[in-house]
Amino acid sequence: MDLDLLRSAVDWRDGRLEMVDQTLLPGRLVVLRPTTVAEVVDALRRLAVRGAPAIGVAGAFGVVLGLAEAGPPRPGPEGLAAARADLRRAADALAAARPTAVNLGWAVRRVAAAAAGAADAAELRRLALEEAVAVLEEDRAACARMAEAGRAELASRHRLLTHCNTGRLATAGLGTALGVVYAKAAAGEPVQVLASETRPLLQGARLTAWELVSAGIPVTVMADTAAGAAMAGGLVDAVLVGCDRVARNGDTANKVGTYSLAVLAAANRIPFYVVGPLSSFDPEAADGAGIEIEQRPAAEVATLAGARVAPEAAAVWNPAFDVTPAALITAFVTDAGVLRPPFETSIAGALPR
Amino acid sequence: MDLDLLRSAVDWRDGRLEMVDQTLLPGRLVVLRPTTVAEVVDALRRLAVRGAPAIGVAGAFGVVLGLAEAGPPRPGPEGLAAARADLRRAADALAAARPTAVNLGWAVRRVAAAAAGAADAAELRRLALEEAVAVLEEDRAACARMAEAGRAELASRHRLLTHCNTGRLATAGLGTALGVVYAKAAAGEPVQVLASETRPLLQGARLTAWELVSAGIPVTVMADTAAGAAMAGGLVDAVLVGCDRVARNGDTANKVGTYSLAVLAAANRIPFYVVGPLSSFDPEAADGAGIEIEQRPAAEVATLAGARVAPEAAAVWNPAFDVTPAALITAFVTDAGVLRPPFETSIAGALPR
Repeated sequence: MDLDLLRSAVDWRDGRLEMVDQTLLPGRLVVLRPTTVAEVVDALRRLAVRGAPAIGVAGAFGVVLGLAEAGPPRPGPEGLAAARADLRRAADALAAARPTAVNLGWAVRRVAAAAAGAADAAELRRLALEEAVAVLEEDRAACARMAEAGRAELASRHRLLTHCNTGRLATAGLGTALGVVYAKAAAGEPVQVLASETRPLLQGARLTAWELVSAGIPVTVMADTAAGAAMAGGLVDAVLVGCDRVARNGDTANKVGTYSLAVLAAANRIPFYVVGPLSSFDPEAADGAGIEIEQRPAAEVATLAGARVAPEAAAVWNPAFDVTPAALITAFVTDAGVLRPPFETSIAGALPR
Repeated sequence: MDLDLLRSAVDWRDGRLEMVDQTLLPGRLVVLRPTTVAEVVDALRRLAVRGAPAIGVAGAFGVVLGLAEAGPPRPGPEGLAAARADLRRAADALAAARPTAVNLGWAVRRVAAAAAGAADAAELRRLALEEAVAVLEEDRAACARMAEAGRAELASRHRLLTHCNTGRLATAGLGTALGVVYAKAAAGEPVQVLASETRPLLQGARLTAWELVSAGIPVTVMADTAAGAAMAGGLVDAVLVGCDRVARNGDTANKVGTYSLAVLAAANRIPFYVVGPLSSFDPEAADGAGIEIEQRPAAEVATLAGARVAPEAAAVWNPAFDVTPAALITAFVTDAGVLRPPFETSIAGALPR
């Protein structure tokens, strides 16, 4: 398998931004090539691009598009002032597209800051583009480091259970947890994936299965309810998940259902790994108790393909995430290597001072 | 709440068989009134009626319909021979409608056996009807005994998590696990139910939520992935599930996802109850290891409302049931009272010799 041939959620090719429209998967692979900020904002809003790292990269290049939209750069102080105004307008619109996505605001601010010291409009554009490319390249490199660290860690474990989508469709590179799967496949190991469908939004069935099928890696989809039977039945060598936020003690917020998988893995003595970059570790959070859990709309559970599956009068509880206690986690696979218990120590040692 | 006003899956009213068409819920409540064996077979085949006890009752009255279909009973030996042939034809067709449903064959054979000694065709019909009514009444009485035993057991626990559908739509009475909820509501207790949607077929979202809403009992639906967060978050006082088959040591086969709930309940020190009649206990099974797990069609997971959610090339693993080890079960609530550990002893003591 040549990993370079696999398409990720977001890319910059020949001076154009390319994004896979994830709302059409697994039915159709459509690549969007937006040329305006408005098109990028629309793609972010309707979840055509999703996954924290991918959203950040899309936002970074959205700023670049906002500058190009205004026509050729004009010389002199007036041209510079106009370019700065264009940049600010683009950055504001992009950061507001999904206000709770941390990576989006971070990447947009980073590109704006890099361009701040430009002497003229042409330099401002160049600096913005360089920084957006750096955001993308760093994400890709972090994915590659996690993938290799995970491959080395899991050299003897090939039947991997995963949750949600943590692969090429969530990043500009190979992904986090799914990146390990790609690295194992590229190394010729007999890796196979059991993907929980991940209700309510079915990222496992729709996106993870599509990614792996298109890469030629064996994948089996199951309902989330079947995960326990799979583990108890001896079908799983290790569980690999991503993370949305990791506290200093190792407590981990991730897609709802992750905690159940961790409890089932512990009960069946199956190693449970969290794969994510150090940028997902939150030095402000001492433990999981302080992590607020976003509630999502009832319709995600109560309707399917537009049809009601639960009666109108029934209430719905739809948390987006849950928190897995550190004690259930075997190790973290990060872009700075594998972090093992006691996590208070290993996480503190890995995080920048 | 007047429990007598609530409609169950199957009933015999004014000489007619009535069955709720469960394929139309929660959208529409349509009551089928079949008058032929073919109509009952069709309803069984397309899952318009489901739930082991309900299927048995439908089959028992299907035999009665098969006799009535042939016109008025004729006197004499020829009339008796014709009635016996009608009965055999009806019984064969009904038992074959869902060959793996244990209760169906059992109920049909029971009606046939009760009618075997008749002196003429009229008596044969009378005996068949009496036996079908007995099957229904016994199911209803068993539900009532389980409901009351569970109510007494859970007098101080009101926030109950349940899985799949185990209520009026699964029986001719109040149900098994959900029967306890009805008994608590009828006693004026502040019961509220958290219903896991129960992928892949969504019996929790579609049927359990409809039942409880129509009875005026507070119900909240969640994705199966949210059950862990609910238990860890202190939202659950007890978990109640039904059972498809219980082994002599207490290992319990039930709808897939039950085992996950049991592991999560144990990890969060929440009592986990299995509610079911003694007829669900299998004296032939020493433990869960010998219980074969039926695999269901891939389309149940890979498609939703006719649209594909997983790519064609992805494999699907879709077990219908899982096995919960006895050690995770707090107690069994049965029509012979509450059975507690050690289950080898309490189950042996309750089963008929």
